Amino acid sequence: MEEQALEEQVSPEVRARVQGSFDRQGLMRHLGARMTHIAPGRVHITLPRAAEVSQQHGYIHAGATSAIADSAGGYAAFTLFPEDSTVLTVEYKINLLAPAAGDHIEAVGTVLRSGRTLTVCQLQVFSQVGDKKTLIATGQQTLICLESRPDH
Amino acid sequence: MEEQALEEQVSPEVRARVQGSFDRQGLMRHLGARMTHIAPGRVHITLPRAAEVSQQHGYIHAGATSAIADSAGGYAAFTLFPEDSTVLTVEYKINLLAPAAGDHIEAVGTVLRSGRTLTVCQLQVFSQVGDKKTLIATGQQTLICLESRPDH
Amino acid sequence: MEEQALEEQVSPEVRARVQGSFDRQGLMRHLGARMTHIAPGRVHITLPRAAEVSQQHGYIHAGATSAIADSAGGYAAFTLFPEDSTVLTVEYKINLLAPAAGDHIEAVGTVLRSGRTLTVCQLQVFSQVGDKKTLIATGQQTLICLESRPDH
Amino acid sequence: MEEQALEEQVSPEVRARVQGSFDRQGLMRHLGARMTHIAPGRVHITLPRAAEVSQQHGYIHAGATSAIADSAGGYAAFTLFPEDSTVLTVEYKINLLAPAAGDHIEAVGTVLRSGRTLTVCQLQVFSQVGDKKTLIATGQQTLICLESRPDH
Repeated sequence: MEEQALEEQVSPEVRARVQGSFDRQGLMRHLGARMTHIAPGRVHITLPRAAEVSQQHGYIHAGATSAIADSAGGYAAFTLFPEDSTVLTVEYKINLLAPAAGDHIEAVGTVLRSGRTLTVCQLQVFSQVGDKKTLIATGQQTLICLESRPDH
Repeated sequence: MEEQALEEQVSPEVRARVQGSFDRQGLMRHLGARMTHIAPGRVHITLPRAAEVSQQHGYIHAGATSAIADSAGGYAAFTLFPEDSTVLTVEYKINLLAPAAGDHIEAVGTVLRSGRTLTVCQLQVFSQVGDKKTLIATGQQTLICLESRPDH
Repeated sequence: MEEQALEEQVSPEVRARVQGSFDRQGLMRHLGARMTHIAPGRVHITLPRAAEVSQQHGYIHAGATSAIADSAGGYAAFTLFPEDSTVLTVEYKINLLAPAAGDHIEAVGTVLRSGRTLTVCQLQVFSQVGDKKTLIATGQQTLICLESRPDH
Repeated sequence: MEEQALEEQVSPEVRARVQGSFDRQGLMRHLGARMTHIAPGRVHITLPRAAEVSQQHGYIHAGATSAIADSAGGYAAFTLFPEDSTVLTVEYKINLLAPAAGDHIEAVGTVLRSGRTLTVCQLQVFSQVGDKKTLIATGQQTLICLESRPDH
C-alpha cells in the first residue's frame, strides 16, 4: 500500500457502497459516530465524547474506542473489495495507550496488506486537544472478504 | 485460578464496589448491557440484541461484542484487586467466531493470572438459541492495577 | 470442539501426515522440540530447557516458547484438514505469564473452531517442576487452510 | 516518538548494555540472528535464511520470524529504560503477511509509547529480494520495565 495510492479518491460507487453499509450499522449511529474520510484503503471515523460512551472515570470507554477502530478498519478494507462482496472482522488486537482527552476521538483504519481472501489493517485512534494530537490506541486487524449475502 | 475458587462468593463490599463502578459506565447502560454474575475472578455481562447494537447485516456489531467482553474481563480482574485501586485495560485481542443468533449474548471474563501489577483474563462470548450455547467470540486481555484516583 | 472428540485417536494416515510435516520443520529440530501427542484437534510439543533456547536471564526465550506454541496450534488445526491441503499461520497473540522453571516446557494447541477456510486455536504453554504444573504462556491463533502446494 | 528522536544516536553506555544483553540470548546466537541497528527507541535484528530456521515448506518458520521481532521490540524498549532495569515481554501479537523470500529477513522494533511501567512497540519484519523490500510480518508488543535482577 503506497502512500500515494491512499491519497487517491474512491469512485462514487465505492463511496456510496461504503457509506450505505456504514449507515446500516445501528451501533455507529447509536454511539454518535460519523465517517469523516473515505479513501482507497483508508477510512476515518469520529466519535464525540459523551456520557453515553463513557467508562467509570468519565473517559471514552475502551469498548467504544475499539468499536470505531474496528469499523474504520473494516471499511478501509471494504473500499478495496469487489462490488459483490461483504466484509467480516476475523479478529483484532488493540492497545489502549492513553485516556481520551478533548471533545472527540478519531479512528483511522489503514490497509497494510490486501489479499483475495484476507486483509490486514492498522488501527489508530487519536484524541485532539487544541493543536496537540495524541495517539490513544493502536491496533491490528484481520478481515475476510466474503461473497455477497442476500441481505447486503 | 481453581474452578473451586471461581465458584466462591465475593464479599458484599467487593460486590458493591464492582456493581457501583459498572453502573458508572455510561456506555454499558447506553448499550443495554447488564452484569449478571459476579464471582471472584469471574464476571458475566449480558447484552440483548437490538437495532442499537447492530452491524450492517443486523447481527450484533463486533464492537458491541468486544465492549461487553472488555468490561467482563475488567471487572473479573477488579474483583481480585485491593480496595483502593482502579483497573485499566492495557490491551486485548478478540476473535469473532460466529454471528450472534438468538435474542442476547453473554460475555464471560475469567482471570487466568492475577499479579500485583498485571492481570491476564480470558474473554468468551456466547449466544444461546434454545438449548444450544455457541461460542461466538474468544479473546485475551491484559489489565493493570493502579492506585485509586480522586475521581473514582 | 467436544472434549470427547479431542480424546479420540487420529487415523494412521493423519498421524503420518502431521509427523511428516513436523519432521520437515528445520526450526523445531534445531531447537530440540519434539511432538509428544497428536489427537484430533489437539497437539502437544515439548521443548527441553537449554542454553540454545535461552534469553538473557537464562530462562527459555519468549521466541522459543512462541515457536512451539505456534507449531502446536498449526498441527492441531492440520489434524482436521483435508488430505490435500496445507496450513499457514495467519496471526497469533501470546501472553507470557511466568518464567519457565523446570527442565522443559510443553505447548498444547487446541482447536476452538474449525471452519472450511479459517481455524482458531487456543495456545497454552506449561512448565512442570515436580508435581506442580504452571501455565507460563497463553495465546490465541488464526490459521488458514490452503490447497496443497507442489512442494508439500 | 518523533522520527527525529529515532535517528539520534544512543550513548555508548546504552549501546553496550543493549548489545551485552543481546549477546547473552542463547536463542538469538543459536538461530544465527544479529543486531544490526541500535537507535533510541528503535532496534533492527537480521536473520539469514537457513535450514535451521525453516518450516515445512522451506520458508523461515513463523516462530523464528516472531522470535527476532520479539527481541527487536524488547531491545527497542530497553534503549529507553533506566540503567538499573530489565525488560520483559508481557505479550505480543503478530500477523504473518507473506512468506520470506530472499536470503535473509530483518525485524524492526519501534517504540510507539514509552511509559514508566509499560512500553508498547510496533514490530515489522521485512524480506529483501534485489531492490524490492516486502513487509512479511507486522505486530504489536507490550513490555514491562522491572527493577534490576541480581543475575542481570
